[in-house]
Amino acid sequence: MPRFKLTIEYDGRPYIGWQRQADGPTVQECLEDAVFAFSGERVEVAGAGRTDKGVHATGQVAHIELSGTRFDAGTVMNAINALIRPEPIAVVAAEAAADDFHARFSANERRYRYEILNRRAPPAIHQGKVWHVAVPLDVDAMHAAAQRLVGHHDFTSFRATQCQSASAEKTLDQLDIFREGEDRIVAIARSRSFLHHQVRNMVGTLKLVGEGKWTADRVSEALAARRRAAAGPTAPADGLYLTGVGYPDEIEAKPQAGHKPQTQ
Amino acid sequence: MPRFKLTIEYDGRPYIGWQRQADGPTVQECLEDAVFAFSGERVEVAGAGRTDKGVHATGQVAHIELSGTRFDAGTVMNAINALIRPEPIAVVAAEAAADDFHARFSANERRYRYEILNRRAPPAIHQGKVWHVAVPLDVDAMHAAAQRLVGHHDFTSFRATQCQSASAEKTLDQLDIFREGEDRIVAIARSRSFLHHQVRNMVGTLKLVGEGKWTADRVSEALAARRRAAAGPTAPADGLYLTGVGYPDEIEAKPQAGHKPQTQ
Repeated sequence: MPRFKLTIEYDGRPYIGWQRQADGPTVQECLEDAVFAFSGERVEVAGAGRTDKGVHATGQVAHIELSGTRFDAGTVMNAINALIRPEPIAVVAAEAAADDFHARFSANERRYRYEILNRRAPPAIHQGKVWHVAVPLDVDAMHAAAQRLVGHHDFTSFRATQCQSASAEKTLDQLDIFREGEDRIVAIARSRSFLHHQVRNMVGTLKLVGEGKWTADRVSEALAARRRAAAGPTAPADGLYLTGVGYPDEIEAKPQAGHKPQTQ
Repeated sequence: MPRFKLTIEYDGRPYIGWQRQADGPTVQECLEDAVFAFSGERVEVAGAGRTDKGVHATGQVAHIELSGTRFDAGTVMNAINALIRPEPIAVVAAEAAADDFHARFSANERRYRYEILNRRAPPAIHQGKVWHVAVPLDVDAMHAAAQRLVGHHDFTSFRATQCQSASAEKTLDQLDIFREGEDRIVAIARSRSFLHHQVRNMVGTLKLVGEGKWTADRVSEALAARRRAAAGPTAPADGLYLTGVGYPDEIEAKPQAGHKPQTQ
């Protein structure tokens, strides 16, 4: 059956998260409704990252499998985008995928971006899209302390207490913090997978370093403590974006004949 | 009486424009209400650029004059920002200004930015903040054609028919068009002042060049024709941002003693 890999952008504000739930609107539900509307098929839109309430994405990846063979990837993308309006969700790329491609289980990397608006005035244009921190932050100190978290560690101190993951051991491949323009601070995090709230808990902790309240050594101690209470607070969902999902080359490179990626 | 220069950011979507009007909410009205709420004074917030319905700003400049001497610039900024919530309007900088500083009449430069999202998929995160153009645009051709508009010209072909300006002669100091990232095209326009809809009419015309429908010569012909109908359509408000206003140095450099600019 034709399987499609979809790359998805969304504004997370109106949703209680990616994953379909009984008690509110979700990104997954909106996409599944749009797929049903054009194909008549009730299929699961299986996403690589189950983003939380209010978290945004520019590069979420999902797959769908349709029994009908009428549609090529470009048609699937255009049809979803036409039918999902006015929801702030868009399929930005679609391509035919191999039968064994699974957006979640095939993924070997997730990339997140966290944006802090670091100025005295609250956001106007970027309401709900950034974490507003009014006190000046020392971005170099934040970046240096962030390097204490890079590598293979038990991240118990940085996982939500309700996290369902079997193990808290993860390898954090990248955590870079830098200034972008005059008043924006960006964190880029990259890992095979993240624990629940891991990025937001790391950013919330590093903000304490940026304020001068914590040293890099204290971040190392928090990590070693393996207790959630040892680390800093959870940064708000507003600033978090799932920007990309990586797959092994051999899985990426199996488009069906005649189905080119449709990005432009 | 103490006079303050305010630099203002806003999301233009909820407003029928900058300027106070009877038939809908305006940015000016929201600001004047906030000033009244903390000072008890009904004063005009005089803006440098009268942006249209739906047009955004990151660097609008306005001034206010308060009879009370209780407030310094930082207090004015914080008070407006606290009282204007949840409107998507923020004072990002405030400073004491000389008595002869007038945000509109002292200004000798306006700077605008226009953002096009040039990809097949509609915007999700940036709904209402960009012009979505699905067909691929040739940005080099657009930039080259834009140079035909730079300089001192009669811009009748690019002014709204309802434009109130006495003369259509303006000097366009800059009109650069370039790609930013994978799918964004940015136009930067700079002039002492612009005619009504001038930036949007120039961008709407240059989009025709980007599509290959018009040549640079046709843009020159449209300019020479001095008829609105000779140029292209008006680009939507969504992508337009007033990013800055310039003042002669001697006016800028007159803060009252002890009143430093409050930006951070």
